[in-house]
Amino acid sequence: MGQQYQETKVIPFYSTNATSEINISALFNEMLLVSEHQLHAVGIDSQQMVAQGIGWVVTKYHLEIKRLPRINEKVTIVTEANSYNKFFCYRTFTLYDSQGQQLLHLLSNWVMMDIKKRSMIEVIPETMAKIGCEYSTDIWRFPRIQRFKYSQSPQIYRTRFFDIDVNGHVNNSIYLDWMLDSLGKDFLMQHQLQTLDIKYDREVAYGQSVQSFVQLEDNLISHHQILTDNKVNAQAQMQWQQRQK
Amino acid sequence: MGQQYQETKVIPFYSTNATSEINISALFNEMLLVSEHQLHAVGIDSQQMVAQGIGWVVTKYHLEIKRLPRINEKVTIVTEANSYNKFFCYRTFTLYDSQGQQLLHLLSNWVMMDIKKRSMIEVIPETMAKIGCEYSTDIWRFPRIQRFKYSQSPQIYRTRFFDIDVNGHVNNSIYLDWMLDSLGKDFLMQHQLQTLDIKYDREVAYGQSVQSFVQLEDNLISHHQILTDNKVNAQAQMQWQQRQK
Repeated sequence: MGQQYQETKVIPFYSTNATSEINISALFNEMLLVSEHQLHAVGIDSQQMVAQGIGWVVTKYHLEIKRLPRINEKVTIVTEANSYNKFFCYRTFTLYDSQGQQLLHLLSNWVMMDIKKRSMIEVIPETMAKIGCEYSTDIWRFPRIQRFKYSQSPQIYRTRFFDIDVNGHVNNSIYLDWMLDSLGKDFLMQHQLQTLDIKYDREVAYGQSVQSFVQLEDNLISHHQILTDNKVNAQAQMQWQQRQK
Repeated sequence: MGQQYQETKVIPFYSTNATSEINISALFNEMLLVSEHQLHAVGIDSQQMVAQGIGWVVTKYHLEIKRLPRINEKVTIVTEANSYNKFFCYRTFTLYDSQGQQLLHLLSNWVMMDIKKRSMIEVIPETMAKIGCEYSTDIWRFPRIQRFKYSQSPQIYRTRFFDIDVNGHVNNSIYLDWMLDSLGKDFLMQHQLQTLDIKYDREVAYGQSVQSFVQLEDNLISHHQILTDNKVNAQAQMQWQQRQK
């Protein structure tokens, strides 16, 4: 168990959409911001780490949603760097409503990268110690994202200037916008996301044309793949349910 | 003079880009959020107004920038509904850094709409009185956006699900993303925005294909026009200067 860190936040209008619920990309951004603040609170600055050539990278998320927060709703975000081993660090995020009811829970898998060499390095124990995160040989198992043969043509997205973060890379949350937008307004208005698994494989660069493949099964599982130049950048699998109205 | 209302905010990583400065669209969103909060503080809820068939709509902005706030910078946003007349309400926003230095100043022109009829209505004096905004016959003059003949082909943007707000319309700030992205990464990395004038003419709907026309003059004035189905949705004019580096 690591140290828990929490913040309370009101969901602003600009993070929501026609469902009145928070955008999934904005949800991930808010959770990441809270983990950034946990690091700041113990004197770790990810931007300084980047300047020293070391970057944190998320490789996998597993999200379970009971209910998404709505416009102007006050939520509490709790995060914890749970444990780390030689190459992986595991962090969880839990959102609660103002009554203390759990809204959603996110598992994340992080690696440390040598930014210049673009290769994984061993997790730095001193950094983990600062946030009370202990070494453990435990390997967390994330649900496997099934291989899928897409028969439908992809939706095309061009990477835009404002998709690029301060480090010059496409913000991880943008992939979720590409995947979800491909499902179309009718589907998104009529269904609620229950679980989401995403695996990040390769970065997308500015100006690249992105192919967003999506296919929906009868059991309301959607499969997603982001490709550039015939190489996979990210894959995802989501479980949906019909909205009660 | 209306009642001033202010909030302090730290600029999150996800609102910034490769320049380390805040995205212009995120900047407008943050300012609008503060004006929403001013309304909430006196018991006015724009969502309730919408439910009653009345909407606030911005028709014009004039922005003057000394410096844009940067990632993790703490800023204070001050807003004031300055005066209103029969059809227009004028609101200003000023951003200050943590030393109290002014970063930027925004003038905005608002109208009230009958949402069903899609037509302007007279400003409701009772609403204005609640935020200490007084009637005045003064008409604020905004810089005129010059007509411009575009010789270059437009950049095409498809309206996406997450561009649509809780009321089912494209968020006003998205137009700024379409306009600015069309200038390209090289230009945006090498230049700083000094002034921006934008005029909103018609709404864009979900799924529409947007033409973003842009043309840059030698004196670093950029002209912008957003068109759908050969009709103008928004026009803008921006003054830039070369970045000192």
